[in-house]
Amino acid sequence: MKTLLRWKGSTYRLIWKEFLIYMVVYLTISLIYDFVLDDDSKKGFEDIAAYCSTYTSALPIILLLGFFTSTSMQRWFSLVTSMPGTSKVIANFVMSIKENQKEGHQIVHQYARWVLLGWALTFRLICKPLKRVFPDLLSLENAGLLQSHERLQLEICPASNQPLVVLQWKLTLLKFCNRNGIFMDISDYGRNQDLLMSFKKSCGDTIKFAAKNIPFALIQAVTITVYSFGLASLMARQLTDKHTPTSFIIKYFPVLNTFQYFLYYLWLKFGRLAAYPFGDDENDIDIKRLFQAHIEGAVRWLSLYSSPGSTEQLVSMS
Amino acid sequence: MKTLLRWKGSTYRLIWKEFLIYMVVYLTISLIYDFVLDDDSKKGFEDIAAYCSTYTSALPIILLLGFFTSTSMQRWFSLVTSMPGTSKVIANFVMSIKENQKEGHQIVHQYARWVLLGWALTFRLICKPLKRVFPDLLSLENAGLLQSHERLQLEICPASNQPLVVLQWKLTLLKFCNRNGIFMDISDYGRNQDLLMSFKKSCGDTIKFAAKNIPFALIQAVTITVYSFGLASLMARQLTDKHTPTSFIIKYFPVLNTFQYFLYYLWLKFGRLAAYPFGDDENDIDIKRLFQAHIEGAVRWLSLYSSPGSTEQLVSMS
Amino acid sequence: MKTLLRWKGSTYRLIWKEFLIYMVVYLTISLIYDFVLDDDSKKGFEDIAAYCSTYTSALPIILLLGFFTSTSMQRWFSLVTSMPGTSKVIANFVMSIKENQKEGHQIVHQYARWVLLGWALTFRLICKPLKRVFPDLLSLENAGLLQSHERLQLEICPASNQPLVVLQWKLTLLKFCNRNGIFMDISDYGRNQDLLMSFKKSCGDTIKFAAKNIPFALIQAVTITVYSFGLASLMARQLTDKHTPTSFIIKYFPVLNTFQYFLYYLWLKFGRLAAYPFGDDENDIDIKRLFQAHIEGAVRWLSLYSSPGSTEQLVSMS
Amino acid sequence: MKTLLRWKGSTYRLIWKEFLIYMVVYLTISLIYDFVLDDDSKKGFEDIAAYCSTYTSALPIILLLGFFTSTSMQRWFSLVTSMPGTSKVIANFVMSIKENQKEGHQIVHQYARWVLLGWALTFRLICKPLKRVFPDLLSLENAGLLQSHERLQLEICPASNQPLVVLQWKLTLLKFCNRNGIFMDISDYGRNQDLLMSFKKSCGDTIKFAAKNIPFALIQAVTITVYSFGLASLMARQLTDKHTPTSFIIKYFPVLNTFQYFLYYLWLKFGRLAAYPFGDDENDIDIKRLFQAHIEGAVRWLSLYSSPGSTEQLVSMS
Amino acid sequence: MKTLLRWKGSTYRLIWKEFLIYMVVYLTISLIYDFVLDDDSKKGFEDIAAYCSTYTSALPIILLLGFFTSTSMQRWFSLVTSMPGTSKVIANFVMSIKENQKEGHQIVHQYARWVLLGWALTFRLICKPLKRVFPDLLSLENAGLLQSHERLQLEICPASNQPLVVLQWKLTLLKFCNRNGIFMDISDYGRNQDLLMSFKKSCGDTIKFAAKNIPFALIQAVTITVYSFGLASLMARQLTDKHTPTSFIIKYFPVLNTFQYFLYYLWLKFGRLAAYPFGDDENDIDIKRLFQAHIEGAVRWLSLYSSPGSTEQLVSMS
Repeated sequence: MKTLLRWKGSTYRLIWKEFLIYMVVYLTISLIYDFVLDDDSKKGFEDIAAYCSTYTSALPIILLLGFFTSTSMQRWFSLVTSMPGTSKVIANFVMSIKENQKEGHQIVHQYARWVLLGWALTFRLICKPLKRVFPDLLSLENAGLLQSHERLQLEICPASNQPLVVLQWKLTLLKFCNRNGIFMDISDYGRNQDLLMSFKKSCGDTIKFAAKNIPFALIQAVTITVYSFGLASLMARQLTDKHTPTSFIIKYFPVLNTFQYFLYYLWLKFGRLAAYPFGDDENDIDIKRLFQAHIEGAVRWLSLYSSPGSTEQLVSMS
Repeated sequence: MKTLLRWKGSTYRLIWKEFLIYMVVYLTISLIYDFVLDDDSKKGFEDIAAYCSTYTSALPIILLLGFFTSTSMQRWFSLVTSMPGTSKVIANFVMSIKENQKEGHQIVHQYARWVLLGWALTFRLICKPLKRVFPDLLSLENAGLLQSHERLQLEICPASNQPLVVLQWKLTLLKFCNRNGIFMDISDYGRNQDLLMSFKKSCGDTIKFAAKNIPFALIQAVTITVYSFGLASLMARQLTDKHTPTSFIIKYFPVLNTFQYFLYYLWLKFGRLAAYPFGDDENDIDIKRLFQAHIEGAVRWLSLYSSPGSTEQLVSMS
Repeated sequence: MKTLLRWKGSTYRLIWKEFLIYMVVYLTISLIYDFVLDDDSKKGFEDIAAYCSTYTSALPIILLLGFFTSTSMQRWFSLVTSMPGTSKVIANFVMSIKENQKEGHQIVHQYARWVLLGWALTFRLICKPLKRVFPDLLSLENAGLLQSHERLQLEICPASNQPLVVLQWKLTLLKFCNRNGIFMDISDYGRNQDLLMSFKKSCGDTIKFAAKNIPFALIQAVTITVYSFGLASLMARQLTDKHTPTSFIIKYFPVLNTFQYFLYYLWLKFGRLAAYPFGDDENDIDIKRLFQAHIEGAVRWLSLYSSPGSTEQLVSMS
Repeated sequence: MKTLLRWKGSTYRLIWKEFLIYMVVYLTISLIYDFVLDDDSKKGFEDIAAYCSTYTSALPIILLLGFFTSTSMQRWFSLVTSMPGTSKVIANFVMSIKENQKEGHQIVHQYARWVLLGWALTFRLICKPLKRVFPDLLSLENAGLLQSHERLQLEICPASNQPLVVLQWKLTLLKFCNRNGIFMDISDYGRNQDLLMSFKKSCGDTIKFAAKNIPFALIQAVTITVYSFGLASLMARQLTDKHTPTSFIIKYFPVLNTFQYFLYYLWLKFGRLAAYPFGDDENDIDIKRLFQAHIEGAVRWLSLYSSPGSTEQLVSMS
Repeated sequence: MKTLLRWKGSTYRLIWKEFLIYMVVYLTISLIYDFVLDDDSKKGFEDIAAYCSTYTSALPIILLLGFFTSTSMQRWFSLVTSMPGTSKVIANFVMSIKENQKEGHQIVHQYARWVLLGWALTFRLICKPLKRVFPDLLSLENAGLLQSHERLQLEICPASNQPLVVLQWKLTLLKFCNRNGIFMDISDYGRNQDLLMSFKKSCGDTIKFAAKNIPFALIQAVTITVYSFGLASLMARQLTDKHTPTSFIIKYFPVLNTFQYFLYYLWLKFGRLAAYPFGDDENDIDIKRLFQAHIEGAVRWLSLYSSPGSTEQLVSMS
């Protein structure tokens, strides 16, 4: 029961505007039929209404939407669990650097910054809200994610290659650490490479998700179908001269028409949502907040580098 | 045959209340029609009943429910096999600590406690029954999962970050163990990191499952559809003046209407169950009992640290 | 064509009993209508038959079964490929133990026995046929899988924890081997832990498959639907007074009714099979034979421990 | 357009025989009706034809086939990508053996032969065409895959255990190599074990695919349904006395009936294909050619063992 | 709303040609009926039109297309995320070669070239546009991917084996590096083998995707069904003598027929696209551009080999 009445994030909130418009148009048509048209026009109107009824019942919209929406939902679920995360890459790097190195703090900090930078450059390509936050590389520099000499290097690349350039920097840093022997163990060199490469693969899959998803033309076709159903259902009604309760209900409370149309409209909405989940919509993935969480996480993992005191304290106090 | 008659966990038990209400309302309407209404009202009643019949047959509910429920069930199955477990993390840590270390018991115990704490903090975020058991951090402290100085550190974080703070402690402890050379082998340092990170990923996926699941508005839309079908099916009947057996059955034993409605109602119930499986319902996952099992498991794996005697006994006796 | 005529494991064999009963009842009803009922009763009968016809055509059983059966089949396929195997755990352990150790044979044998024991204790929980073979721990002891002092330790645990206790023994044995330096390489210690943990995860998933599968109430609902369809289809027929070939066929050769009902019945059967595949049914997974194969496998892998002669022979002879 | 006209591997080629038979029978029935039957018989014929029409429209075959075929296709796709390959096992072994060993060539050759033997013994169990090529162990010996003293050892086992015996030999060979120190690195011992075990798992999954697939009775049920639809559609037609173009078309060009039937027939064919893909059919997986490719591959990887000259040449020439 | 009006990559662009043809034919038929045919012919025309109407409504095309398209889309998505990439193989090799080796640059360059060559040889087998760019081995040599003495070796193999030959070269190169001790660590030898083998598996899966996909005959069958629906829908109309608005609309604005046909046509198009995604179509995967990106990537990773200066600069400047 509570499910039916909740307003926040609800069906009602999603459709109330469209619902009002739909009702106004429907009732206007009904009033025109009752009070404006003469008998001949009524005849023609009834014919067209009958044709629209045929139309609405002949389109197998529910099957179309069922296959469309369940396909895009499955894809969306797989995206949600495979989005690139920065925690593992950063934490493992921090854990694998020897303590008390001369440039340790600097290296660790730079690596974390580059991982975040790679994440941001990737999602700028596909997520409009993040693109608005970071419209150019200068904004990333102002946010402290990029240094000016790095920016110069990035600016000569097309945007789609920038994450790869940053990856190259990170790999170079790994080589540097290995050459100078500041990894705890030789195997850390390979392990960090693997993690970076998984991170790259995740980023690449996310871009592919946005670029090679359900074809736009298919989404458009389904959208046209649902909207044309909506238009036809505004006219679709079985009219008779007799003034029975049913005819009154049909004319002024189009329960069935409204219900069907908004059910289809909602399914369509969720299918499209799943096909492009990086927008501004309430149900979309909030990339901006997510990025904030990744930054906070990076700060947390960086603090792992030099907190020997607190651990011993934790252990000894327990 | 046994399948049909079982009561425990059965369909009957799930719906008997709704069934009684439905039958009472249906029969009341039938009685009103037969004994209260005059002929004119009967005419209007019959019209509305016919309209409701159209309504119930026009809504393609079964397809809607089919796609909805099979999508959420698939998601539920994938959740069930990917829920975070504590055994692997704890047992591997215990097995990788050198025996006869000064603080060995203390370290091992603390690590196991923190893993359980991370699990509990994660599921508190998404599972209401567990949230009721541990309404605040103090209750976790009373349960022995948290120490008071740790609680102070956690209290300054928002609830959603607390599992990450505990993860940070665990990573710090791994560093401590590595620095003091109490791992059996250098590779144990990396292996335990990997296990912790998988544990974190599992916890994160579970939270995502609860947060970024089938959109609420879609569940609401399906729910409204099924309930509106139920309401319409209370009125939907083909009435005739003739007193044939069929008309009697239709009026007083609404087999078909009832059957359809409760079939849809059940499917809806399972779809919603799969969409939020952490509640109090009989078919939900019992997180409280699961947590108890994880605690028992932790005690078991802890006993691995110092039982050389019993093994040799086992081996020698065989 | 051969597909149509095969008897073994065939459709015919699955349904011939139900088919006979169905036909007898159907024909009896037809005979009663033709030779027992008077004209008034015939009228009533025809009304009820018409109602039943509506009923059978209105229930969207095929969609219900389609979604139900394909969901449970997918789940079943994933079970089949993820069932726990003992070969990998045992063979890897045997291969990783140094040869010519004092207690080598004993250790290797004990480990293999415990792996088999863990497997048996797991499947006893979910598979009734295996439970009948090993009704209690004593029967396992008699089968040579358990020693009496081990049985005493297991008996104080609830059945669901017994596989975990055995896992603890195995982990303790790994520690013992590591401490006494009888692994070929230090990495074998970790590798065997990982394999044991995968084995545990597989066992746990199998138990989850049996315990948290498609909810019983849903299976029951689908079953009720199919059986009620069957009952209605016994009555459902369009009767006319005219003695045309069609009416004769409909009355005495209910091809369509029978066909539909048994098609649905079969789908239901397979859906239920997939939902609980550990029973006695011909199409179920034969856990008893599988366990026998695992025992034979264990003997085979154990022989790997001490057969240096035969290999050199094999190599030199080739 | 080209899609419509291609003959090779086409729909037309698959069904032209059945199509001819169908047409001849259909037209014969039409001719009998027009020129043989008298008016009374025509009446009866029309009744039966009408009943068959009901029958063909009442069977929800398309849904049945949709669920059946998409389930078996998904299973087939997962099989195709998970079939056991020999390249990885052989190449890794060859790469991990020290060069210039006394028995090096012999060992490497024997290992490769045994991997191929394991593959062949596995697919002999499930693939009839390969079984015809290798009807017994002697034929494998003649093909050079088996030596006579090995054959004696295999012959005392049931066929289903033979791949396991060969696996045991391979594991013994790994132990031999490890004992005699001819692996490049100690880790190669474990890595080759893991690869062998993955190979075994792949083989086992393939056997499970063939043995525990979609139950035969279900395939039979679907087959019966489609064929019975075909029979009914031969009779199903709406006949009237009037000689309109429509009635002429219906009688002598059964476009709709034919179309529906062969569409269903084709879907059935593909569903059955996916359920047993190891046969002789044109669309089946050609196991014999695949085995040939594996043998060629093995020869290629074996050449990796001793070709130091050519590499240095390659490198220096570049 | 924007979704409805976009032209680029839109539905309209995909179908406008077919749409014009369809409309012209439909209107021509309508005009012939109105102005050419006499009353008798009109009668026959109406009969055929009615038969076509039956035909279009009886074919369950939407279900057929739903199952077909969702199956091929799922397959397509899995292809997109599993296509072989060269970055990981090349970058890991470059990172694992000791710096300041005599032939270091040459080896690293050769390895990268061979990886790209393997990729190109694989996709030449399945992708016609790439085949047109590289019609023979000479064109690959001209592109700098192949050296002339290598080409001679490849030319004696069938095209399907060429990627394996190149793999053999790469493995030989790994052995060479291992023998001469220019890997940073012994484990790099195995790690690079594993990566090469994953690369090979990816390439093999892609070939399998193209070769063992949805059977051609099935695609053909679905295509025939949709086109025959289109033909029938050109004739299908309910004609009456009365000149009502409905009959006018039906005759000259075939909204419903057109809509249904082009909806099916589009679904078919996407299903076929997903079944063979390596063509020239706008929605296909652009293999040529992808190959260009892989070449650019290879250059980038090669620069990792010898850029110690820039890193130190990066680190020191930060």
